[in-house]
Amino acid sequence: MTDHRLLEEGSQLAINFEKLASIARSGSLVVPVAVQDADTMEVLVLAYVNQEALDYTLAHGVAAFWSTARNELWVKGATSGDTLQIVEVRINCEQNSLLYRVRPLGSGTCHTKGPDGSARSSCFYRRLENGQLVMDG
Amino acid sequence: MTDHRLLEEGSQLAINFEKLASIARSGSLVVPVAVQDADTMEVLVLAYVNQEALDYTLAHGVAAFWSTARNELWVKGATSGDTLQIVEVRINCEQNSLLYRVRPLGSGTCHTKGPDGSARSSCFYRRLENGQLVMDG
Repeated sequence: MTDHRLLEEGSQLAINFEKLASIARSGSLVVPVAVQDADTMEVLVLAYVNQEALDYTLAHGVAAFWSTARNELWVKGATSGDTLQIVEVRINCEQNSLLYRVRPLGSGTCHTKGPDGSARSSCFYRRLENGQLVMDG
Repeated sequence: MTDHRLLEEGSQLAINFEKLASIARSGSLVVPVAVQDADTMEVLVLAYVNQEALDYTLAHGVAAFWSTARNELWVKGATSGDTLQIVEVRINCEQNSLLYRVRPLGSGTCHTKGPDGSARSSCFYRRLENGQLVMDG
């Protein structure tokens, strides 16, 4: 497996603790957003939002993020078709994180694909067990 | 209302987009973690975890975070009694965020209190509606 596939499909835990520091270095003013399926209640993905992405989300009723890798507005599903329709946007006590409750309009949410070849419903498809990552199902 | 109460109990949106930059400046190597009630499926809080907090969580079976405000290990419930028992720990595709699925053992999860005087079950007790924050219920 390539390093990339190992990271995404492997059983080896290799948490990237550098991500937030690199976001800060990029100068992006973002807050984290947890995204939850409003019907199944599954947590789908954790992403980042700046003012522009939040404004887009509220104006268009679809989940938009700030891509901290590409430093650009990321309208989820714009290329993949895996659009997330907004049911509601919630905010935490201290107003430094968000919760998007959504309805997926495509085949899934994650950019990785499951055994059936379609996008996984959630990015959290592995659990930690005795120091290893275990796939569901 | 004090500024603090306005932030937590008010209807005015005032997102703190500076939080992640300040975490990075502190030198903490953390990843965000979404915390979900494994029974009700409610998203309870979004926090941060470093290697030490993750190790503590896995060793003791209760949710621990890294307090990015105090720069110290934060064993949730150690002072409030609102311990979160770990049901499972999940990780995303790119291994840069976590999901704790938990069972709350106390009266709630948020440090704020609802009208009945007990801790709110979730920090996400307000939704955005037409540019204002609206409380549930």
